[in-house]
Amino acid sequence: MDFFEPGDFALSSGITLVNARLAYKTHGTLSAAKDNAILFPNFLGGTPEALEVWIGEGRPLDPSKYFIILPGQFGSAPSSSPSTTAAPFDRGAFPAVHIADDVRVQHRLVTEKFGIQELQLVLGWSVGAMQTYEWAVRFPGMVKRMASFAGGPRPSAWTKLWLHTAIEEPLTSDPHWNNGFYTDAQAVLTGMYRQAHATALTVQPPGFYREGAEGWRSLGFASIDDFISRFWATFWRSQDPNDVVAQARKARSADPSAGGDLTAALSRITAKALVVAFTGDPIFPPAECKADADRIPHAQFREIESVFGHLATFALSEQDKQAIDQALREVLAN
Amino acid sequence: MDFFEPGDFALSSGITLVNARLAYKTHGTLSAAKDNAILFPNFLGGTPEALEVWIGEGRPLDPSKYFIILPGQFGSAPSSSPSTTAAPFDRGAFPAVHIADDVRVQHRLVTEKFGIQELQLVLGWSVGAMQTYEWAVRFPGMVKRMASFAGGPRPSAWTKLWLHTAIEEPLTSDPHWNNGFYTDAQAVLTGMYRQAHATALTVQPPGFYREGAEGWRSLGFASIDDFISRFWATFWRSQDPNDVVAQARKARSADPSAGGDLTAALSRITAKALVVAFTGDPIFPPAECKADADRIPHAQFREIESVFGHLATFALSEQDKQAIDQALREVLAN
Repeated sequence: MDFFEPGDFALSSGITLVNARLAYKTHGTLSAAKDNAILFPNFLGGTPEALEVWIGEGRPLDPSKYFIILPGQFGSAPSSSPSTTAAPFDRGAFPAVHIADDVRVQHRLVTEKFGIQELQLVLGWSVGAMQTYEWAVRFPGMVKRMASFAGGPRPSAWTKLWLHTAIEEPLTSDPHWNNGFYTDAQAVLTGMYRQAHATALTVQPPGFYREGAEGWRSLGFASIDDFISRFWATFWRSQDPNDVVAQARKARSADPSAGGDLTAALSRITAKALVVAFTGDPIFPPAECKADADRIPHAQFREIESVFGHLATFALSEQDKQAIDQALREVLAN
Repeated sequence: MDFFEPGDFALSSGITLVNARLAYKTHGTLSAAKDNAILFPNFLGGTPEALEVWIGEGRPLDPSKYFIILPGQFGSAPSSSPSTTAAPFDRGAFPAVHIADDVRVQHRLVTEKFGIQELQLVLGWSVGAMQTYEWAVRFPGMVKRMASFAGGPRPSAWTKLWLHTAIEEPLTSDPHWNNGFYTDAQAVLTGMYRQAHATALTVQPPGFYREGAEGWRSLGFASIDDFISRFWATFWRSQDPNDVVAQARKARSADPSAGGDLTAALSRITAKALVVAFTGDPIFPPAECKADADRIPHAQFREIESVFGHLATFALSEQDKQAIDQALREVLAN
């Protein structure tokens, strides 16, 4: 893991984040012409490593061909986040961060650190797709192609309620939360388990639990409880609760039009765009993703059938992996 | 409200509920031949009054024609429940109750109190439909017709997780829960609000929140927060938390085959059956309701399109009301 340190960073909230820090990883080598870079921002709770499942020689995200940058995001350790920042911005006092802040600091990484003027592709899943949309609207001249997977420019009304109810509230209502000044992350463990239940209940498509076609069984879990414990509880327990809450609030406020006209904002995208949705994904439903694609001048929409829905992020089946690689191959060929 | 008091009642758990009590209301007059009775059990958190929206002269459930019994259920005040029962079975010590217990005590009401040998129709919504299935399997000779709305014989795996995560856990994880021995119901108010968020997130079909077609707007609410506060929070705050938990656990354990072969149990139903599901209802999805209907010898399945999904229970639109009345009219005509 490397770190980009832009010094004091002016957040869009008006607060100056002192000694800001953006973690990142790279794969491959930047060409002399600096014309082979791909930027792949992260999802909520994700780490740069979590995205490496999509990178490999002979695959579309081929490190022998492309220079692939996996940037972190504000609110997520080890980048500047509640768990990694000194007073006065530590823990419950960490300032609000926004998708625009992520994109602005990533832009500085890309231009100042690497001297890149054009990205061959910006792509992301879920909150990473929110960053992708922000990139394509904010820096259209730099984004040659974009690919959004299970994401969108901003959350729907339901998705905002989901971010509050399933992600944030289980933690902030834990009796040991103490406005984010808990003694240590494991103090809010019952909140993390409620979060695991809430995400197990809401993230997967209905078919994931359907008798005779259980998605969890195909992943090697012995029961639904086993799936919840070893998948969701493990996922949430590996993270700092304040970090998760900061990222959830960031996702809720995502809006590349900054409170303006989203249709106008999306019409300014010049990138060749691919918008991919997964059947039965309630977080970013296909119909809504298609409506987003319809507002981008040069966009293709594709719906992929997967029992894993929003969790296709994790490349849980060979079928998902191949369908997604194929979509990426096509967008990179154009 | 009337009360049927069967004395000491042997629950299927093996515990004897001392001075058991079943609340009920009736509409219309029982004929001399006792051949015009309809039984209409209740849903989770419902009261007999909540079902009166389906009763009216000139409508299928016509009190000038039928004698309509609206029974309470165990776990729900003012019937025997945690909030209405004396020590040693008060509050957190109330014994587990099962759908079979509801049906057994309702059977005594119907036969001992009224001397009814055959019910023209047993119908219910959701947990009321679970009681309807139990009636039709347990007392096939007494149930001439049955109608299940947004319900089934037992909950799916997802619905069990929903009962735990959205209904039970927000209450039992409240710091003031104290194993059900809270000082008063309002002490677990933050749990009730989390429950309101969780049900708002999970009960309605996705279209209910979709921009441009918001179901909550058609109900006169000013915003989603307004809907959550005045609909869901009001619904949960009107109930005793232990009562709600007892009913949720009862619903989770519903199974007219009592751990046996459900297909065999449903094949014993002799009632003419109508099984109605609502498009987009995640609690009892149409595909699963249809599979239930397919296992009943004389059953019709019908899917009704409604933006309210599971909430169609409350007759929230004239269109829902007419579609449901029409279905009831047809089942009663056969």
